[in-house]
Amino acid sequence: MGQVKEITSLANPVVKDLRALASKKMRDRAGLFLAEGLKLVIHALDLGWKIRTLVFSKTCSENVLIENTAARTIAVGGLVVKTSYKVMATITHRDNPQTVIGAFEKNWYNQEKADFRRSKLFLGLDRIRNPGNLGTIIRTADAAGVSSIILIGRTTEPFSLASVRATMGSIFAVQLYRMSEKKFIDWKRYFPGLVIGTHLSGAVDYRAIDYGNEPLILLMGNEQHGLSENLVAVCDRLARIPQAGQADSLNLAVATGIMLYELRRNNLKIDKRSA
Amino acid sequence: MGQVKEITSLANPVVKDLRALASKKMRDRAGLFLAEGLKLVIHALDLGWKIRTLVFSKTCSENVLIENTAARTIAVGGLVVKTSYKVMATITHRDNPQTVIGAFEKNWYNQEKADFRRSKLFLGLDRIRNPGNLGTIIRTADAAGVSSIILIGRTTEPFSLASVRATMGSIFAVQLYRMSEKKFIDWKRYFPGLVIGTHLSGAVDYRAIDYGNEPLILLMGNEQHGLSENLVAVCDRLARIPQAGQADSLNLAVATGIMLYELRRNNLKIDKRSA
Repeated sequence: MGQVKEITSLANPVVKDLRALASKKMRDRAGLFLAEGLKLVIHALDLGWKIRTLVFSKTCSENVLIENTAARTIAVGGLVVKTSYKVMATITHRDNPQTVIGAFEKNWYNQEKADFRRSKLFLGLDRIRNPGNLGTIIRTADAAGVSSIILIGRTTEPFSLASVRATMGSIFAVQLYRMSEKKFIDWKRYFPGLVIGTHLSGAVDYRAIDYGNEPLILLMGNEQHGLSENLVAVCDRLARIPQAGQADSLNLAVATGIMLYELRRNNLKIDKRSA
Repeated sequence: MGQVKEITSLANPVVKDLRALASKKMRDRAGLFLAEGLKLVIHALDLGWKIRTLVFSKTCSENVLIENTAARTIAVGGLVVKTSYKVMATITHRDNPQTVIGAFEKNWYNQEKADFRRSKLFLGLDRIRNPGNLGTIIRTADAAGVSSIILIGRTTEPFSLASVRATMGSIFAVQLYRMSEKKFIDWKRYFPGLVIGTHLSGAVDYRAIDYGNEPLILLMGNEQHGLSENLVAVCDRLARIPQAGQADSLNLAVATGIMLYELRRNNLKIDKRSA
């Protein structure tokens, strides 16, 4: 059984451990990450994510939803911490913290589970650097109904505070795979569908591709350098988004959104939340 | 005529004044803003923007492009400052500064110039809060060939460091108008084309609208609250982007990108940089 603690000191080891989760090294060591906001925490629990610690502000003690969430945390052996606004600001490294924080177990899917017989659509991301971009891309993929995301090569960690914030909860709704470039290329050999890369010098207008034949992988490249040469070499099509202005390129998250909505053009309908 | 100064002290008043441009108040007072990077500064000069101060790192003294840019700055009566990496980091409030910075005169277009007989496409933005979002949206509009942007109501300033960075140079390629909500609604009375708003509860699929009849205004709303009721009331169509996932909504810049690329679907072609 779990327990409820009231903590007021910034020096408390529980507070220190939670605060340390801002660093990738400590997240890796603990296997945990932070999500902020009551709505998000409930959403995560509903989707089966494992909570290890629930932190909430003393000012919210009378909130039924929080009490309920605390009970769920205790039921799975988690720790519940009631604390001050100041401690919460310290843990999340921000001036205006949410009143609820959850520490969840990270959940990576392994390569063997990247099964194209079950999942038909994959978004592959090559060496994404910016946490905000990665989070926004995860949110966009979720909105477009593409929930299998493969992080290829050295990528910013999706479980960082900035990335999780930018996902607006979609971090809990997608399956995140990670593969080295070499592993991805090996895995891709057995992939029976199209691999479509987006490239500034792509030959094919992104609207001229028949996306109807699944399974399908959409590959998007690093913010500065685009797709690596090795990944370009395994693409069946190189798509280009036309651009009118002086801008060198679209922002990566925007380009990914435009590609995903084109790819899902015939599947997404309004008045129907799931496609 | 302008002059060249070598400055090493962080306490130098020129350095202090440039550094102060990180604050909106000081930008308003001076009528100036900062753009970072040699390529951007040259781009801005080519487009006719007025430079007041050019700052470059001493380590780049032998660079022909910088010498050329310095000469252009002096020719228009601007000041050229040669300084250390440390001073440049101080001015731009970042650890890894670019080696060239320009202070440019802000350029707002006034309402009277928002002439729909010349400009056929407008992007109206209602109370945007996040500088990165605003910059990314400006970059996206430029890429989609929509260069008249109206900022409605209390909006984050497009000339902040974070916003200018996110535009990746597109800040210099667009015309920025600002209007109060009331002024916009007054101006809109005489607008002969369609006003299309994007709304989470919009009735029309965004792909079902005939965008062919220009002039046209696309309205996008605040990150949290969407379009104000008053603005919703002046829309001829309320468009919705369908969503499959759990996400409440798309990121604003991504949604704007999807809308702009739909609206410009028949105008943007690859192998043709201007549409």
